[in-house]
Amino acid sequence: MIETHLPGRAPDQDAIRAAARRIAPYIRRTPLLRLAGADLGLPHDVVLKLESLQASGSFKPRGAFNTLLAGGLPAAGVVAASGGNHGAAVAYAARALGVPAEIFVPEITGPAKRARIESYGARLVVGGAAYDVARQASEARAAETGAVLVHAYDQDTVLAGQGTVALEFEADAPDLTHVLVATGGGGLIGGMAAWYGAGGTALVSVEPEGCPALATALREGRPVPAPVGGLAADSLGARQVGALMFPLAQRAVAAAVLVPDAAIRAAQRVLWEAARLVAEPGGATALAALLCGAWVAPEGARVGVLVCGGNCEPGSVAG
Amino acid sequence: MIETHLPGRAPDQDAIRAAARRIAPYIRRTPLLRLAGADLGLPHDVVLKLESLQASGSFKPRGAFNTLLAGGLPAAGVVAASGGNHGAAVAYAARALGVPAEIFVPEITGPAKRARIESYGARLVVGGAAYDVARQASEARAAETGAVLVHAYDQDTVLAGQGTVALEFEADAPDLTHVLVATGGGGLIGGMAAWYGAGGTALVSVEPEGCPALATALREGRPVPAPVGGLAADSLGARQVGALMFPLAQRAVAAAVLVPDAAIRAAQRVLWEAARLVAEPGGATALAALLCGAWVAPEGARVGVLVCGGNCEPGSVAG
Repeated sequence: MIETHLPGRAPDQDAIRAAARRIAPYIRRTPLLRLAGADLGLPHDVVLKLESLQASGSFKPRGAFNTLLAGGLPAAGVVAASGGNHGAAVAYAARALGVPAEIFVPEITGPAKRARIESYGARLVVGGAAYDVARQASEARAAETGAVLVHAYDQDTVLAGQGTVALEFEADAPDLTHVLVATGGGGLIGGMAAWYGAGGTALVSVEPEGCPALATALREGRPVPAPVGGLAADSLGARQVGALMFPLAQRAVAAAVLVPDAAIRAAQRVLWEAARLVAEPGGATALAALLCGAWVAPEGARVGVLVCGGNCEPGSVAG
Repeated sequence: MIETHLPGRAPDQDAIRAAARRIAPYIRRTPLLRLAGADLGLPHDVVLKLESLQASGSFKPRGAFNTLLAGGLPAAGVVAASGGNHGAAVAYAARALGVPAEIFVPEITGPAKRARIESYGARLVVGGAAYDVARQASEARAAETGAVLVHAYDQDTVLAGQGTVALEFEADAPDLTHVLVATGGGGLIGGMAAWYGAGGTALVSVEPEGCPALATALREGRPVPAPVGGLAADSLGARQVGALMFPLAQRAVAAAVLVPDAAIRAAQRVLWEAARLVAEPGGATALAALLCGAWVAPEGARVGVLVCGGNCEPGSVAG
């Protein structure tokens, strides 16, 4: 395996503030929505942050823009490997910044996601049965052309970009005691841990039972390979959490819980029925932990939940 | 026809402030989302207010709660006639306040809307081929039992409740020069006109070509019957705008434009593709005027758009 990207150093709050200034002209300040406990069958309100309404349909452009802007834009453009949200975000960012993008996807990537990546003007390169093949091809290509490689999660500028979610969440809802976040490779919760780790808000990691990368790593004391499967694998299915995020998670993640696919599906339905929100399975995973009782808020807690993505067939959330 | 409801007097800003205080514990403060012009194919940004995320899926609970709370809760409960959003909102409000609700719907009301009304615990009364029959039955029932009747639009407390949309919009986006709103019977734009009429923000009414009740009334100088048809008739298909709202609209509505159904469908697709938002046809109608050019913002305008409802099959917004 060729490893051409430099993961860098774990970000701190200053790096996240710098990222926020850098990306502000390009990303959406995503809104909060407070839902009454009665509308969710819960004994407490929940404050949602709607990152599903972000450009390209997930939080991923934050890290992509920050990576492209932090290092100076290369004429050779940008390269990424992804079967989904990350690839769409990098393609979106490259178009906005006027640089070419090549996105490497495995053959399993479906036509809707391919179309979305191409709709942003990126060159789509399809190859290999699995994500790892696409990733190796992307790294070789970056080494060959001098393009910037944007890693899906294990890169300092990516973590700092995703950490701006926490900066905004805290600014707009400063009194939260707990924030629930879905975890895949850990770029999002790692960046948020870098922000919240200094303060009084506890992070709760939620993973599908089929993709327990962070829960497994925390138990083992280091990032180790874990199974990848189930309903949310297209967005949360990382084989192993990133090296950069792991010490941040050890320090700032108060609990790492797992939820069954049925609870994720139920949470998608509840978001639709209660608030007309479309969340993809990975986007509904954090709320699922509350609804199915995998994590129970302590008395008096003020609970935030990140809805991190909405890239699915809209009809799939009903019924 | 039995006319038992008292439309009352047109609200002013004080009545809207009082409504906002009254309903605050029960409704959602719906968020704003700024979309870049580039993401919409427009030369300017658009600030959306996402009333589609309101409880029950539209702005309608604002007027329902205000009506129920303003007069003292009657033990006999509440009665309303509606094929859709208004009925769901009154049922939702009645449940939250612990009073019984009877919702009269015509036979054409589909199973999904019937199920939503019943899911909030209301008694559903189906009868008559058209809305007018259900309305007359609801008025007779209210006269018989002493229940409060909540009119779908032509009632002072309903207008004041809907006007809280404008109060919030102005508080959260004080610099807007124009706000586009879809018009049906006129409860929403009438309430908003009562708020914005005093200030520097111009209201633009948008109606489907098939339901031109306000455009027709403004041309004729008084509320008159107009055709009802097309894609958004289930939420915007009022035969005639309300008597209470009309003078407010004459004073504060700067333009009343019409859009074809194809533009409404296209706006639903754009909201989904650009921001993963589900808007019903009536909820996408205001944005449609910008996208199809039925209304063009003057140079330097700062434009707000209300997304007023999301009660449709989610799969209907794609493709």
